[in-house]
Amino acid sequence: MHINHTFNLMKKRITATTALILSGLLYGSPVAAEPVYSTMEEFMASPEYVKFIIDNLWILLAAAMVFIMHLGFASVESGMTAAKNTVNVTYKNVFILCTGILAYAFIGFQIMYPGDFNGWFGFGGFGIGFDSADPVAFLSPAYGEDMTIWTDFIFQAMFAATAATIVSGCVTGRIKLHVFMIFGFLLVAISYPITGSWLWGGGWLDELGFYDFAGSTLVHGVGGVAGLACIILLGARKGKYGKDGSIKPILGHNIPLATVGAFLLWFGWFGFNGGSVLSANPAEVSFVFVTTAISAAAGALSAMLVTKLFINKLDATMALNGILAGLVGITAGADVISPLFAAIVGSIAGAIVVFAIIGIDKMKWDDPVGAVAVHGVCGIWGTLAVGIFVAEFSVLTQLIGVLAIYGFTFLFAFGVFAALKYTIGVRVSEEFELKGLDMAEHGVPAYPNFAGVETNGFESPELKPVMDK
Amino acid sequence: MHINHTFNLMKKRITATTALILSGLLYGSPVAAEPVYSTMEEFMASPEYVKFIIDNLWILLAAAMVFIMHLGFASVESGMTAAKNTVNVTYKNVFILCTGILAYAFIGFQIMYPGDFNGWFGFGGFGIGFDSADPVAFLSPAYGEDMTIWTDFIFQAMFAATAATIVSGCVTGRIKLHVFMIFGFLLVAISYPITGSWLWGGGWLDELGFYDFAGSTLVHGVGGVAGLACIILLGARKGKYGKDGSIKPILGHNIPLATVGAFLLWFGWFGFNGGSVLSANPAEVSFVFVTTAISAAAGALSAMLVTKLFINKLDATMALNGILAGLVGITAGADVISPLFAAIVGSIAGAIVVFAIIGIDKMKWDDPVGAVAVHGVCGIWGTLAVGIFVAEFSVLTQLIGVLAIYGFTFLFAFGVFAALKYTIGVRVSEEFELKGLDMAEHGVPAYPNFAGVETNGFESPELKPVMDK
Amino acid sequence: MHINHTFNLMKKRITATTALILSGLLYGSPVAAEPVYSTMEEFMASPEYVKFIIDNLWILLAAAMVFIMHLGFASVESGMTAAKNTVNVTYKNVFILCTGILAYAFIGFQIMYPGDFNGWFGFGGFGIGFDSADPVAFLSPAYGEDMTIWTDFIFQAMFAATAATIVSGCVTGRIKLHVFMIFGFLLVAISYPITGSWLWGGGWLDELGFYDFAGSTLVHGVGGVAGLACIILLGARKGKYGKDGSIKPILGHNIPLATVGAFLLWFGWFGFNGGSVLSANPAEVSFVFVTTAISAAAGALSAMLVTKLFINKLDATMALNGILAGLVGITAGADVISPLFAAIVGSIAGAIVVFAIIGIDKMKWDDPVGAVAVHGVCGIWGTLAVGIFVAEFSVLTQLIGVLAIYGFTFLFAFGVFAALKYTIGVRVSEEFELKGLDMAEHGVPAYPNFAGVETNGFESPELKPVMDK
Repeated sequence: MHINHTFNLMKKRITATTALILSGLLYGSPVAAEPVYSTMEEFMASPEYVKFIIDNLWILLAAAMVFIMHLGFASVESGMTAAKNTVNVTYKNVFILCTGILAYAFIGFQIMYPGDFNGWFGFGGFGIGFDSADPVAFLSPAYGEDMTIWTDFIFQAMFAATAATIVSGCVTGRIKLHVFMIFGFLLVAISYPITGSWLWGGGWLDELGFYDFAGSTLVHGVGGVAGLACIILLGARKGKYGKDGSIKPILGHNIPLATVGAFLLWFGWFGFNGGSVLSANPAEVSFVFVTTAISAAAGALSAMLVTKLFINKLDATMALNGILAGLVGITAGADVISPLFAAIVGSIAGAIVVFAIIGIDKMKWDDPVGAVAVHGVCGIWGTLAVGIFVAEFSVLTQLIGVLAIYGFTFLFAFGVFAALKYTIGVRVSEEFELKGLDMAEHGVPAYPNFAGVETNGFESPELKPVMDK
Repeated sequence: MHINHTFNLMKKRITATTALILSGLLYGSPVAAEPVYSTMEEFMASPEYVKFIIDNLWILLAAAMVFIMHLGFASVESGMTAAKNTVNVTYKNVFILCTGILAYAFIGFQIMYPGDFNGWFGFGGFGIGFDSADPVAFLSPAYGEDMTIWTDFIFQAMFAATAATIVSGCVTGRIKLHVFMIFGFLLVAISYPITGSWLWGGGWLDELGFYDFAGSTLVHGVGGVAGLACIILLGARKGKYGKDGSIKPILGHNIPLATVGAFLLWFGWFGFNGGSVLSANPAEVSFVFVTTAISAAAGALSAMLVTKLFINKLDATMALNGILAGLVGITAGADVISPLFAAIVGSIAGAIVVFAIIGIDKMKWDDPVGAVAVHGVCGIWGTLAVGIFVAEFSVLTQLIGVLAIYGFTFLFAFGVFAALKYTIGVRVSEEFELKGLDMAEHGVPAYPNFAGVETNGFESPELKPVMDK
Repeated sequence: MHINHTFNLMKKRITATTALILSGLLYGSPVAAEPVYSTMEEFMASPEYVKFIIDNLWILLAAAMVFIMHLGFASVESGMTAAKNTVNVTYKNVFILCTGILAYAFIGFQIMYPGDFNGWFGFGGFGIGFDSADPVAFLSPAYGEDMTIWTDFIFQAMFAATAATIVSGCVTGRIKLHVFMIFGFLLVAISYPITGSWLWGGGWLDELGFYDFAGSTLVHGVGGVAGLACIILLGARKGKYGKDGSIKPILGHNIPLATVGAFLLWFGWFGFNGGSVLSANPAEVSFVFVTTAISAAAGALSAMLVTKLFINKLDATMALNGILAGLVGITAGADVISPLFAAIVGSIAGAIVVFAIIGIDKMKWDDPVGAVAVHGVCGIWGTLAVGIFVAEFSVLTQLIGVLAIYGFTFLFAFGVFAALKYTIGVRVSEEFELKGLDMAEHGVPAYPNFAGVETNGFESPELKPVMDK
């Protein structure tokens, strides 16, 4: 198995390298045939060993940074929603991160990287796939040019839970806990790795020339579109949409917490994108840091400006979503889009997210944290942007990749969630929802020492809804 | 001094290496004799220099990650306790981190690594021990194979304050501030380095074959058992235990803050365990990342499940403690326990922590954040697990190590705390306790702009105590 | 341009190296002439390439750590001020970070590093300055000994926004949002890079022998003194100073949030100072980690002690400011001041910050978070300390550097802010201020689910003002 696995891993890298050479961004990369070592001692005494240590260390550090994104998601989700559901948000986020790691370890990893397969679905076997009888095959360049199997796994595992965590934000406040658990598990263990295998596992989209560097579509798009399927079936929070068609804002209960989350996500994204170089190549990793930062900054400023111009608000939540939009937008092409174009990609993403949040609200699809807009809609934009801004890629091919992965994921998510809806039911009772899931499902409040209010604590007659015009 | 110091440092590493070879996890490690350099120029021009840079950099980064664990501890401790003591928690945590670093720099470091000593107690002298007359001896492989003396010190210093910080959580809400200051200083400056020297300093437990990779016993066990000694002498918070034997839950006042803390602890633990490899060896560090993540994830899921099955609660605090339990559990054997066994070790730790928290509560030992259960009890489990799951280690030897270190620390802590109790007194007045330490000792509230409530802010008739059946 | 740019970059490094050699701290540094490569392939196949990867990776990681300092600043600023201005704080901090990155990318970077210039002001051109026609010149040691142009830029960009973020803390609670936006942009795009070019760009202060390793003056001093100019012109928050000369404390609304911020700043400072080595040199980076940690710890303990002795308070906010004071204090000499002297530098900084905060308050300069004291006053101390504690540096030269940079920045800031004051006005209306900027400017509260109080939530008759004697 591992040889095919390696083959695919290298194929991913070679595709990326080709892209860089085509776009004129990569200047020389010694892709000579790797020597083969017969023992670990031989490898560790070789001149290549030191470079392997650095590359491997960087991917481990990047994995730790992506780990922090899960705290970012938990903080954004709880900060941007009602206080009465905060324990529930925490519980869901801990569950999905932990389930994601284990499900990916035992099932998902070898679906996503199945080795030699038909390009649509493969399964290399349960577990991570390390064979202690042949360490060189897994712990030297014989596995991956720049990392051990353990590093490869942990980096990928940190990505895997992301998609399901994004869904958590969409369905917050009214989903039954065990429904989310079942759905999240299936998404991480089955759906995410299948679509992931089409590109990163060396499948049919890789053959086609589709390019998604760190996962605008493969990770963020999957989470966003799965969330959309869920909220269509789940329905809106009580009181969100009036019978007269009015939209009532339900304010985030803790803006500094949401801010902590957004900044931690940005920090983690340096690992998400920077680690996706799959080595510590100085030119490439530093380039990716710059495009990532510039797109995030442009996304925030653009979202601030657009929100001010079009709905006349100075909206901190939109500014935070603008950061995330810029980050999602650059993720597909962080290694091939120039810094100047990164500013444009981020600016457009920052505008898109504002209109997408408003538009989704008008559809009465209740997405409490704007995750469908941030991850789903900006994921499309980011993926297409590679075709638009980099001559060597085709917008059409990018579009095919988006349609295929969004389509599959939407159908999978809709099917699973519909099955759950019409069997065990997906929604908590109205009584539970009004009371808040913390007291209703968990029996404890998140903030027992503070006096809560039904309405806004500092409310004044001038209070205007954020998204309402 | 430095030669003996180096000797012991290398011995620690060699012991670990031996363990890895025995368990079949390490494949080749060029432990050839290090060449000796006469000047720094000579060393820096040598082929070994580059590998030294990487290894040293990784340990520095790991030190920064362990630093973040102190923010994790502060956040967990304040989030899981009452709002009225939050300023006090902050103050204590800042104090103990800063005192820990300085006490370890001036006293503790050379107790823990005394050089050649009798195996029970040694002291290499005050200060870190750098001699500017002989830089090569401290800044090249002549000191440690993979790091400078400064790196060695800062990594160890970040560990040292951990034990005392754990105690901070146990005694929170009713201890006199200056009592904690005195106790914490003595624990970091004297007790922790003495027991540490028995293994990591090359002392008698090292000779015996005891194995504690990153400190399930040496760090977490020490903190947990010292905390136990304190809370036995200190007594419970007012109102915690009724005269009729009832147990009243005192809820954490800020669950998202506790969540931030737990996630930051997990993040930092990648440095705590990963840095304990003492080099950036790709196979070993990546292996440790994987076992650490898998055990943490299994710990959380197990604690969630056990809490649901046995006390029918969906308890977010228990989920967070499950993460920490899994992390403490794997710490002793993160480099020698396979990923599959790591899942088992974590699962058992997650179950243990639930029952330990309930059991300790039944003993009327009031541990507000569950630190005795998480660090003390799971520290024992993690240390024994090395003997259980890895053939080359003896459960008996592991048990001897646990008994020796827990025993010494308990006696030290109990003696010091009793002396403080019967001289200056350890407990604040009942009036101060009820009022909260923030107003009573510090004269300021932590949250002056929010209306506080004596009872739970979102309380409703259905509110049930978390731990009560 | 790039050759001059490189020249200056190397000059900075050589100056630092010279300092280290003079102070006896650096033992050998192979500053041999760099070989020149004609293609990237040639460079990547060279023996130097691997060391370049490590050095470059470390600066990228350091940049990510400095990024986290911006979350630290946002958290400290919001935690230490009133709840009613929290959305505004968030909004300002997101804006200034994002604007800082973009302004520095398009304008500031080539003002600060203009290449060969007259030593007072230069401008290398708009943009970062990468020329894709000559990659070797920008992505190999031909650019900087240890990093690519992208790495150099992103590390410097993370520093650039810091100065303006410091100002944000000073003016919080009463400044018009767009005034801060204009002022912050000009500070980052023009003033900060000009004074920065005098030393780090190889200008006249560099020629003079002024030494500021990581920016006690160039970064923190600039932010602090610019903030001072603003608050003199802006005036105090309503109710802060009574007509009878009394000083009313306005308490921070969220002490754990401020604590999170201070710890994140400390964490990030390992990258701020450690990355300023501009390579991963093990002896130097590890030395900087140790001096940084020791000074921070000493600063906190000193501030705690001084606050207790002189105003009889156990003040957590002062402890946090003591950490930051110790960090600012060691920043100018983190690579040349011994650990023992670092303890002294930090202790003095911790005392200075307490008296400076009190003194500034007595001047009726209202600095809500103490940023002028922390960054401005301790920045002076740290810069002079290099001259005091390290024989090879002159106190007089250090003083000249401080006067020049503080003077220029004060005049720039005062001029710009006065121009804004007497044209568009800098202060929100009294009505807006009393209501809070969140409702008044943004139309949403930061904590809509909590009951707010005008006075202190846990207020009791014993409540005493923090700074009042």
